[in-house]
Amino acid sequence: MNPLTHASHLFGPLFSDPESEALWDTSRFVDGFTQFERALAEALAEAGVVDHTVAAMAVADIKSFQPDLPKIATHVVQDGLPVPEFVRQLKAHARPAALPAIHTGATSQDLIDTAVSLILRDANLRFEARLADVLTALDALDSKWGEATIMGRTRMQAALPISVSDRIGTWRSPLTSHANLLKALRPQVEALQFGGPVGNRASLAPHGDAVATALAKRLSLSNPDRAWHATRESLTEYANWLSMVTGSLGKMGQDLTLMAQQGVDEVKFSGGGSSSAMPHKQNPVRAELLVTLARYNATQLPAMHHALVHEQERSGGAWSLEWMVLPTMVTTTASALRHADSLLQSIESMGQSSL
Amino acid sequence: MNPLTHASHLFGPLFSDPESEALWDTSRFVDGFTQFERALAEALAEAGVVDHTVAAMAVADIKSFQPDLPKIATHVVQDGLPVPEFVRQLKAHARPAALPAIHTGATSQDLIDTAVSLILRDANLRFEARLADVLTALDALDSKWGEATIMGRTRMQAALPISVSDRIGTWRSPLTSHANLLKALRPQVEALQFGGPVGNRASLAPHGDAVATALAKRLSLSNPDRAWHATRESLTEYANWLSMVTGSLGKMGQDLTLMAQQGVDEVKFSGGGSSSAMPHKQNPVRAELLVTLARYNATQLPAMHHALVHEQERSGGAWSLEWMVLPTMVTTTASALRHADSLLQSIESMGQSSL
Amino acid sequence: MNPLTHASHLFGPLFSDPESEALWDTSRFVDGFTQFERALAEALAEAGVVDHTVAAMAVADIKSFQPDLPKIATHVVQDGLPVPEFVRQLKAHARPAALPAIHTGATSQDLIDTAVSLILRDANLRFEARLADVLTALDALDSKWGEATIMGRTRMQAALPISVSDRIGTWRSPLTSHANLLKALRPQVEALQFGGPVGNRASLAPHGDAVATALAKRLSLSNPDRAWHATRESLTEYANWLSMVTGSLGKMGQDLTLMAQQGVDEVKFSGGGSSSAMPHKQNPVRAELLVTLARYNATQLPAMHHALVHEQERSGGAWSLEWMVLPTMVTTTASALRHADSLLQSIESMGQSSL
Amino acid sequence: MNPLTHASHLFGPLFSDPESEALWDTSRFVDGFTQFERALAEALAEAGVVDHTVAAMAVADIKSFQPDLPKIATHVVQDGLPVPEFVRQLKAHARPAALPAIHTGATSQDLIDTAVSLILRDANLRFEARLADVLTALDALDSKWGEATIMGRTRMQAALPISVSDRIGTWRSPLTSHANLLKALRPQVEALQFGGPVGNRASLAPHGDAVATALAKRLSLSNPDRAWHATRESLTEYANWLSMVTGSLGKMGQDLTLMAQQGVDEVKFSGGGSSSAMPHKQNPVRAELLVTLARYNATQLPAMHHALVHEQERSGGAWSLEWMVLPTMVTTTASALRHADSLLQSIESMGQSSL
Repeated sequence: MNPLTHASHLFGPLFSDPESEALWDTSRFVDGFTQFERALAEALAEAGVVDHTVAAMAVADIKSFQPDLPKIATHVVQDGLPVPEFVRQLKAHARPAALPAIHTGATSQDLIDTAVSLILRDANLRFEARLADVLTALDALDSKWGEATIMGRTRMQAALPISVSDRIGTWRSPLTSHANLLKALRPQVEALQFGGPVGNRASLAPHGDAVATALAKRLSLSNPDRAWHATRESLTEYANWLSMVTGSLGKMGQDLTLMAQQGVDEVKFSGGGSSSAMPHKQNPVRAELLVTLARYNATQLPAMHHALVHEQERSGGAWSLEWMVLPTMVTTTASALRHADSLLQSIESMGQSSL
Repeated sequence: MNPLTHASHLFGPLFSDPESEALWDTSRFVDGFTQFERALAEALAEAGVVDHTVAAMAVADIKSFQPDLPKIATHVVQDGLPVPEFVRQLKAHARPAALPAIHTGATSQDLIDTAVSLILRDANLRFEARLADVLTALDALDSKWGEATIMGRTRMQAALPISVSDRIGTWRSPLTSHANLLKALRPQVEALQFGGPVGNRASLAPHGDAVATALAKRLSLSNPDRAWHATRESLTEYANWLSMVTGSLGKMGQDLTLMAQQGVDEVKFSGGGSSSAMPHKQNPVRAELLVTLARYNATQLPAMHHALVHEQERSGGAWSLEWMVLPTMVTTTASALRHADSLLQSIESMGQSSL
Repeated sequence: MNPLTHASHLFGPLFSDPESEALWDTSRFVDGFTQFERALAEALAEAGVVDHTVAAMAVADIKSFQPDLPKIATHVVQDGLPVPEFVRQLKAHARPAALPAIHTGATSQDLIDTAVSLILRDANLRFEARLADVLTALDALDSKWGEATIMGRTRMQAALPISVSDRIGTWRSPLTSHANLLKALRPQVEALQFGGPVGNRASLAPHGDAVATALAKRLSLSNPDRAWHATRESLTEYANWLSMVTGSLGKMGQDLTLMAQQGVDEVKFSGGGSSSAMPHKQNPVRAELLVTLARYNATQLPAMHHALVHEQERSGGAWSLEWMVLPTMVTTTASALRHADSLLQSIESMGQSSL
Repeated sequence: MNPLTHASHLFGPLFSDPESEALWDTSRFVDGFTQFERALAEALAEAGVVDHTVAAMAVADIKSFQPDLPKIATHVVQDGLPVPEFVRQLKAHARPAALPAIHTGATSQDLIDTAVSLILRDANLRFEARLADVLTALDALDSKWGEATIMGRTRMQAALPISVSDRIGTWRSPLTSHANLLKALRPQVEALQFGGPVGNRASLAPHGDAVATALAKRLSLSNPDRAWHATRESLTEYANWLSMVTGSLGKMGQDLTLMAQQGVDEVKFSGGGSSSAMPHKQNPVRAELLVTLARYNATQLPAMHHALVHEQERSGGAWSLEWMVLPTMVTTTASALRHADSLLQSIESMGQSSL
C-alpha cells in the first residue's frame, strides 16, 4: 500500500528486499492452498475418512485445477478473503465423485494460515543464511581491526579506551542469540493450521486429530495440539523476534554513524553517499537505514499484540491486521540483514589513530 | 514492501486504494522534482539572482530533460535518496550557460519534501471529496432510519433505548470536525520546502527569502517562515489527523459489527461475505476492515513522532522513517473512507423490531 | 503503577513533575464531581427543570457532603469507576426534597470527563507558562551565542558552517507553533461533558441543551454541540499535541548530546552528571532525558487512537485505557518542559572555537 | 507519574497491584545495591583480587552502612541515576582499608541492572503462581460447564455450536505456553550484570570473569558470557512475554464481554458493576479491564524495542526509557492475572440454554 517501498519505485532500493517479498506473492498463496488441498485429500484417505480412490481422484483434479484469479479478486472484499471463491471454483472443476476428499473438514483459515506457515519456512531459511553472513562479516572485521583502539563512550561522552573487538563483540552477541532463538521458534511458526469451521475439528470426529497428523506430515510442518485459529501467540513471538533482529542491527548502525562523525573518525567506509549540494560529502547511508528499519519494526510490533485480542472463534478484524503487518516485518528484517552485510563489507578501516 | 496489500495481489482489494497509491508513484516524484527546478529557475530570476535569459534557458533545458531512471535507481542506496543523481543528470543535460539557474541554492531535501507537498495536495482534495461522500451517506441513512429505535449500550450491556439517529450522530460528529480540521491543516502540509544545503538559505543571501516567496507562489504552495528540514511537526500533526479519521471510522465499523450480531440484529447488510465452510453465513467484512484500518494507522503514528527527534540539520534516519509510514497512512485512510462509503451504501435496514 | 517514576522514589526526580501530578490527585476528582453536581443543581433550576428552592437545598447538601472515600474505593472495581458509590452516598446524605436537583439527567461519565476537563484547564495554564519560559531561555541563549559558528551537520556528517542562531531557530520554531496550537485546542479539551445515561440528554428533554448551556457557563467550560461520551477525538488531538511538544524538545536534547561530544565540543554545560567509576566524566543527563521523554510520549500516543474505537454509547475498555495514558502524557510533557528549561539555563557556552 | 493508577488513588484499584508494585520500591533498589556490593567484596576475595580480610572488612562496613536517601535524591538528575552518590557515601562510610573491596571493577549500571534482575526474580515467582491460579480456575469452569453448548462465532457472526470446553480450551492453551516460556526466560532475565565502566571488565583483568562467576553464584543469578550493558535483548524478549500474557487474557476478556451481552447471554457473573444512572445494570468490568490492560501493554512494548538502539557502551536515553516502561508492564501483567482470576471466580454459569 506504500508505493515508495516497492522494489520498482525510485526510493525502493532503500527499503525493498525483492527476494523475501517474492515469498508473499499471490502465486505462493495459490500454491499453498493447492498443496493444502492435495495433502488433505491424501490425509483424509490415510485416516480412513474417504477411500483412497476418491482421494486419488481429488488429487488429480486439484493438480489439473487452474483458478480464475481475476474472478477470485472480485470476491475478496465481499468474503474478506480469497479462499471461499477459490474453493467454489475447485469444487466446480472437480469430478463429483472426488468432492468428498476436497476441503472436507477444512475452512478458509486453515488454508491461509498454512500457506503463511509454508512461506515463513522459506523466509526462515533465508534468515538463517543472512544471519550467518553478517556474523561472518563481523568476524572478518574483528580479525582485521579487533586489536585497534577506540574510545569507549557512555552517555555520549568519552569514558575509557576499549578495543574495536569489544565493540564488535557487543554487536555480535545478540545476533548469535537471535540465530539460536530462531531454531526454537521455527517449529512454532512452521506449523499446520487445521481446525475446520469453528476450530474444533468436530465435523471429522473422531478422525480429526488423525487427519491433522497425516496432513502435517505430508506438508512437513509441525502439528500443534489443536487449531490456533484464535490463539496467535506463536506469530506474535515471531514478530518480536523479527523486531529484536532489526533492533540489534539498529544499535550497530547507530554506533557506526557515531563512529563516522568528523571529530570522532573511528570508522571509514568506501563508497558512501553523496549530496546534491555538497559533492564532497560521504554519508553513512546504510548505517542510518539500520536505525530506520529498527524503529520501523519496533513501531509495527504492537499491531501483532493487539491482534491477540482475537475475539471468539475467528476475528476478521484481528486476522486482517496481521496480514498488514507480518509480511512487512519479515521483509524489513530481510532488508536490514542485507544492508548490514553490505555495510560491514564496505568498512575500510576501524580504530582511532590518536588513541 | 508488503506484497499482500498491493492492488494486484489476491488480498489487495481489502487494503489497497489504487487511486491514492498512484499519487506516490515514481512519476509523481520525478514530476515534482522537475516542477521544483523549473519554478526555482524562474524564482531565481524574479529575485534578481540570475538573468531572465539564463532562467529561460534553464526552463527550456529542464523541460527537455528525460532522466535515466534505472541509472538513478542504482545510486539510491549509496546516496540515500534519488536526487543527487537526478541533479547530476539534469546538469549534464543542460547547456553550461543555464547552470546558474539550476538547483542553485537548493538541496535534495527541498525537492523531495516539496514533491511530497504536491502529492499531499492531491491527496487532500480526494479526502475532502470522500469525507463528503461518507457524510452524505450517513445523512441518507439518518433520513431513512433515524427514527427507528435501537438499544443504547454502555460497557457492552443494554442500557436504555436510543434512536438510530442518536447513533448515527455519534458517527457523524467527528467526521465533520475532521473535515474542518483538514481545511486548517492543508496550508501547513501543502508547503514549500526551501532551505539549501544546511537549511538556512545562506548561499542565496540576501535573496533567499525572496526566492522562496517567488517559488512558493509559482508552485501554489504555502510559504513557511523558514525551511522545515529538521522540524517535521506539520507532517506529524497531519499523520495524527489521518489516524483520527480512521479511528472515527473504526468506531463506526465496530458498532456495525456489534449491531449485526445474531441476537442483536439491529442492522442488515446486502451482499455480506460468505464462508468456504458455511455458505449460509453473511459476514460484515467492510465493518471489520474499518476496525483493522483504524488499529493499523494508530500503530503507525508513533513512527512520525519518533521522527521528530530529527538530529542536527538533516537526519537520514528520521527522514527515511517518514517515507516508510506517511504514504501508508495516507492510502490506508483513503481505503477506509472508500470502505466506509460502500459499507453505508450496503445497509438495507437499521433498527430493532422488538423495541 | 510504576513506582520508579514517582516523586518519592529514588529514581523519581528524573521523571516526576510533582506540580502537574498533583492535578490528578483523588482530591481533584472529588472536587470536580462536587463542582459538577453543584453547578448541575443550579443549571437545572435555571433551565426550569427544578425549582430554585430545590436547587438551593441541593447545593447546600452537596456543600456539606463529605464522601467516604475508603468505602468508594471498595466499589471501584465492581463498578468500573468511583462515581456510582459517590452518588449513592451523596443522595443518602441529601435531604429527600433536594434529590430532584441531584445527578438528575447526569451519568458517571459526565462527572468524570468534566473533572478531567477541569484538570486539563489547570495543566494548560502551566504549559503556557513553561513554554514561555523555554522560549525565553532560548532567546537569551540566542542573544548571547547566536552569532557564534558551529558546523552544520546532515546525515551525521559535517556539511557547512552555520550560526548558533540557525540551530536555536530550529529548536524555537516548533515550540512557537505549539504555543499557538494550544490556544486553539484549549476550548476543545476544557469542555463540559453532559449527556446522561446513553449520551442523548433524553431524560431532560426538551431542556437538555438548556441545562448543558447553563452548566458549562457555571463551570467556565466550553459547551460542545453534543455529549462526547463515545467521540474522544478532542482528547486524541490533545494527546498528539503533548507528544509533539516532547518530540520537539527531544530533537533539541538530541542535538545537545551530539554537540557535547568530545571531538565536537560545541556546547558546554555547568554541573553535568558524574559517574560512579569515572568521577571526571560530565554527562548531559537532562539532554538525554529529553530524548527519553520524547520516545516515551510517542510510544503512549497510539493508545489514545485505539481508544477512538469506542464501541456503542460507552466503552469501559476504551475509556479506562485513556485513564492509563493521558495523565502520564500530561505529566511527562510537564517534566520535559521543566528539564528543557533547566538544561538551557545550564549552558555555559555555545559555538566551536576552531571554526 | 500517573497518579490515577496508584493503589492509593480513587481509581487505583482498577489498575494497581500493590504486591508487585512493592517489588520496585526504593528499598528494593537500595537492598539490591547493598547485596551487590557485599557479594562483590566476597567475589573479589574469592578471585584473589583482594585479601579475604579486606573483603571481610568491606562486608562489615557495607552491612553497617545507612545511605542518606534524601541526599542521594538531590544528585539523581545531575548524575542521571542514584548510584554515584550511593557509592560516594558508602566509600566515605567505610574504613580506608576496606576500600579496595568496595565497588572495585564495578560501575553504576552493574548495580542497577543487577538490582532489577533480583526484582524480576521475585516478580517471576508471583507470575508462576498467578498463572497457575488462572489455569486452575479455568479447569474448574471446564469441569462444571465444559459440556454446555454455546454458539461458535466467526467474524462476529453465528457459525456453528461449540462446547464451552472448546472456548475454554482456546483461553487455556496460550496460558500454558506462557508458563512454559517463562521457565526458559527466567535465567535470561534473572542475570548478573557485571562489566565495569565500559563493559569489558578490563580493570579487573585477568580476573574479571572469575569475579563475575563468583558474584553470580553468591547472588543466585545466572552468569551471562559477557556484560549486557548495551545489549538489552533479554529484557526486550521478557517484555514481549509480558504483553503476550496480557494479550491472551485480553482475548478471554473480550470473549466474556461478548458472551455477557443481552441477546447472547452465554455467561452470567455474580456481583457485576452498577451504574450511577441505571442501578439495574450489571457490568462485566473485569472482563473489559482485561482488554484495556492488553492494549496498554501492547502499546508499551515498542519502547523496549526502541531501547535496543542503545548507542555505544551505555546510553542514558535508552536505558532510562526502560525504567519508564518495564516496571509498568510487570505490574500491569500482575494486575491482569489478578483480575482474570477474580473474573473467572465470579462466573455463575456458562452456556446458552436455547441451543
